Amino acid sequence: MKSEIIAVGSEMLTPWRQDTNSLFLTEKLNEAGVTVTFKTIVGDRQRDLVGAIRNALGRTDIVILMGGLGPTEDDLTREAVAEALALTMRRDASIVAALHARAATWRIAMPSNNHKQADVLQGATVLPNPNGSAPGQWLDSVFGGYRKLLILLPGPPNECKPLFEAECMPRLRSILPARHIARRTLRAAMIPESQADSLLAPIYTTFTDVETTILAHTGDIQLILLCAKPTAEAAQQRVDELAERMEEALDDYLYSSSGETLEQIVLDLLGLRNATLAVAESCTGGLVAQRITSVSGSSRSFLGGAVVYSNDLKTSMAGVAPDLIARHGAVSAEVAQALASGIRQRTGATLGLGITGIAGPTGASEGKPVGLVHFALADAHNVEHVERTFRGDRDRIRQWAAQQALDMVRRKLM
Amino acid sequence: MKSEIIAVGSEMLTPWRQDTNSLFLTEKLNEAGVTVTFKTIVGDRQRDLVGAIRNALGRTDIVILMGGLGPTEDDLTREAVAEALALTMRRDASIVAALHARAATWRIAMPSNNHKQADVLQGATVLPNPNGSAPGQWLDSVFGGYRKLLILLPGPPNECKPLFEAECMPRLRSILPARHIARRTLRAAMIPESQADSLLAPIYTTFTDVETTILAHTGDIQLILLCAKPTAEAAQQRVDELAERMEEALDDYLYSSSGETLEQIVLDLLGLRNATLAVAESCTGGLVAQRITSVSGSSRSFLGGAVVYSNDLKTSMAGVAPDLIARHGAVSAEVAQALASGIRQRTGATLGLGITGIAGPTGASEGKPVGLVHFALADAHNVEHVERTFRGDRDRIRQWAAQQALDMVRRKLM
Repeated sequence: MKSEIIAVGSEMLTPWRQDTNSLFLTEKLNEAGVTVTFKTIVGDRQRDLVGAIRNALGRTDIVILMGGLGPTEDDLTREAVAEALALTMRRDASIVAALHARAATWRIAMPSNNHKQADVLQGATVLPNPNGSAPGQWLDSVFGGYRKLLILLPGPPNECKPLFEAECMPRLRSILPARHIARRTLRAAMIPESQADSLLAPIYTTFTDVETTILAHTGDIQLILLCAKPTAEAAQQRVDELAERMEEALDDYLYSSSGETLEQIVLDLLGLRNATLAVAESCTGGLVAQRITSVSGSSRSFLGGAVVYSNDLKTSMAGVAPDLIARHGAVSAEVAQALASGIRQRTGATLGLGITGIAGPTGASEGKPVGLVHFALADAHNVEHVERTFRGDRDRIRQWAAQQALDMVRRKLM
Repeated sequence: MKSEIIAVGSEMLTPWRQDTNSLFLTEKLNEAGVTVTFKTIVGDRQRDLVGAIRNALGRTDIVILMGGLGPTEDDLTREAVAEALALTMRRDASIVAALHARAATWRIAMPSNNHKQADVLQGATVLPNPNGSAPGQWLDSVFGGYRKLLILLPGPPNECKPLFEAECMPRLRSILPARHIARRTLRAAMIPESQADSLLAPIYTTFTDVETTILAHTGDIQLILLCAKPTAEAAQQRVDELAERMEEALDDYLYSSSGETLEQIVLDLLGLRNATLAVAESCTGGLVAQRITSVSGSSRSFLGGAVVYSNDLKTSMAGVAPDLIARHGAVSAEVAQALASGIRQRTGATLGLGITGIAGPTGASEGKPVGLVHFALADAHNVEHVERTFRGDRDRIRQWAAQQALDMVRRKLM
């Protein structure tokens, strides 16, 4: 079954705004066994919209329209569908009543143009929208002699997504052949994408019934495995078989078998070991702390740390001896190690992490290029050190460095 | 002049990847006086692609195709354009030579399927691509009796964007009426979007020749003003007139008249005052430090700070008295003030910033809801305090809090 998603709204034809709902809708449609073969973005002009709807009906079985259901003159989706399929509309009394009730709870009189949100296409089923004023519509119709399904959804993500999930998915499942999806997400850190692919391609290409997607992002690889079978068990078994083979191949690059983020895994491992962590960050400037504290409950294992941007702070907050900095430079193995030990001592954490490097674009010197970063991790017994040189702009170097730092903690705790 | 952008690639019809080039292309096309009236995303199937190209040629003047120019069997854009317009292709000897030379610099033999990248559509001009192997093509053609322009671009953003800028913009400017664009971006912090719009709408609606776009994002408002006139001076004058009126209306909510970020402005003001800043963050967990240090050169004015997630660290790193925490709780005006004064003293910074709050979803208590955040800013003479309660999830509350914290520093320095 093929579908087209049409996002309606002139703002999505500017340089500043993008349709994002369609990613969610695609995931859900795929689950139900529907392929997305086209996506179209069209402005708030009825002629353009009618043409786009007719094109979509001519080339797919299911057409999903998002947006253009509001009360303003620019909201033309209902009218355009009516024109494209030569349908009439009726004003639904119960929707009008609901619009009045909604306006009353906001203690305002309902503007008269709001009434158009109660217009229902001939033959359509109204899909209630608990999060907004415009309901969706589900229309089983005929175009060019073929049966077609049209779904009209509100544009705001907080209305579109729950409505689609609650109202459309059960209806789609009831009309499409039963099918069961199994999905797994594996994640690996600090393995180059090309290396991951040459390790994994010989494996996943033999699993022709499992769809494998590889997403790579600054030191992080996500492998999304998806399989559809007549039973849930059969689908799960194939996904698990492939996952197991991939896990083996990825060895210790693998950090998650079910999609958790690296910061979540680090916190899980710290919790498991009853250990705590503190960080002293120079070039990453708080990025590592920020990633860890983005996880709810992180305070159980993460004590905090210092952002030691200036040399004085490296000394006053993390106890790095000034002459160490003078001798080796702020970006050096020695200073990274002193940061790690120092922050560990000052905070009483089980593990202390130190990061110092050159994020650029300025700050390079003889033998110390932009992208050079020293990492150190201290426990009660010793201090490990890693040196890496990353490529890219300031933002990218900082992202890579934060990923490497978290991965170092993970490897220590494994 | 109307255009359609067609992004080619099955990966953009999955739940995981999105076209982003079109935002850049839209900005450039608008500058040249071309409107984008449709965007279409189509997979790597020749039939679908031919249909999409014909649709686009039927409804717009300029059709821009991105992607599908590579060497694989899935790369079908050239073939689809040839079929849609019934054109032949010729294999260009100089492109073949360039492909061989490129392969030689990588010390590999050129795979034979790479040759298809040298296929040039009948009547097309080759657009050199210094960043990749597939050149672009510029095709002045006729469809349905009308003159149409087709532009074929490579898909990777680092190839597509510079090629469009260098090769297509001058050509577009030479065939389209001369037009001069002026643009200004104003930015304001911590003003509700509805309040900004009710302040500004009466002003910008009277400037019908300037296009105003309002983008809102967790405590940050961007106003993008755009005007096209026959001369650059006339366009600039109108944009500046509107900007001046808006600046007045926004008063001290305005922080930038030319698009700088809030962290950049804070650093500029610190530099101007010869002042330094240090931060002690609890609920924002390094987010403020991270935003500031994302700016190159921030080390001149930003010393660093402490991420004091645990109560012990509030004491050991920022000198907050334990009995103050015991008496008022970690999330209190008193602790925020002690954090600000403490970090200021310990680092010797001109200004010390303290942030403590409940990012949620857990951690609320009697009278202290999720979203409550206390901010304090200390200088040599006194400590200011602000209390705010933000709505939303953990991520949103942290984003709002970081924005409020930076805005507090900005207002102090103004």
